[in-house]
Amino acid sequence: MTTTQTQARIEADEKVPMIHIYRDFAATPAQLFRAHTDPNLFARWVGPVGMGADIDYWDARDGGSWRYTAGGGEHSAAFRGCFHSVAPERIVQTFTWEGMPDAVALETLTFEDLGDGRTRLHATSLCDSFEARDGWLASGMETGVNDGYAALDRLVESGEL
Amino acid sequence: MTTTQTQARIEADEKVPMIHIYRDFAATPAQLFRAHTDPNLFARWVGPVGMGADIDYWDARDGGSWRYTAGGGEHSAAFRGCFHSVAPERIVQTFTWEGMPDAVALETLTFEDLGDGRTRLHATSLCDSFEARDGWLASGMETGVNDGYAALDRLVESGEL
Repeated sequence: MTTTQTQARIEADEKVPMIHIYRDFAATPAQLFRAHTDPNLFARWVGPVGMGADIDYWDARDGGSWRYTAGGGEHSAAFRGCFHSVAPERIVQTFTWEGMPDAVALETLTFEDLGDGRTRLHATSLCDSFEARDGWLASGMETGVNDGYAALDRLVESGEL
Repeated sequence: MTTTQTQARIEADEKVPMIHIYRDFAATPAQLFRAHTDPNLFARWVGPVGMGADIDYWDARDGGSWRYTAGGGEHSAAFRGCFHSVAPERIVQTFTWEGMPDAVALETLTFEDLGDGRTRLHATSLCDSFEARDGWLASGMETGVNDGYAALDRLVESGEL
């Protein structure tokens, strides 16, 4: 059996040092909001296949903060940030990979209701230079993005989300 | 008696939607760090002359958050954000004026030791569009910036910082 996996659309903004990610889901905006704010759900889908994620702390509210560690041993990677605002239709947060602690991105997530139980996620990451932005685009980030969203699809299909 | 007030250098970045502010102080990096992280000190210098600031909450640590209200009555304005990272040489935080709650800037503050008890503050604000950045530059922000830093000078001169 072959599976056709939906690919996210990942684009460089033309004017500002921002990455746009668009991905449609067979889920409601409320389900996608839960997937991005409930730490137990988030840990089950984020990142590349086989990486796993351990939540170190997670407080999804205006002014809260978060940190998780992915992988294990010498291949582990930690990510952290703060939640600037958490609302059902829009989340704004900061993002740092601790391997480059001075690089901080400002991320927004919006959930557009497409009707019929479908929702379009639009995620943006604003970097402080085009070089930093292009570094992320060249990093192989699409693997983690697409694997993660496929795992999120499966949580929806199984009724766990 | 006339007073010559040091003016901050406020510049638009040429490549990205960022504002740069540079200002030298007759203070140490540690003093400037305290001025930006101690809420009781911060409230005494920030903003235009006569505005005043009431701290609603303030937790200057990695993943903490802050909010303050300036002015009173119908002229009051509230600002809030989260502290992504707070270190003696560099602070990274988000910033929103609640009158435009969807506009979120990512700010960095660095304190460069110039020797002889002098320090150069470099503050940056990264916006998500050039239009938003240019709106801030056209807003009259330089009054609050320069009044505030002059008040900070006086806290140093009086020995209160």
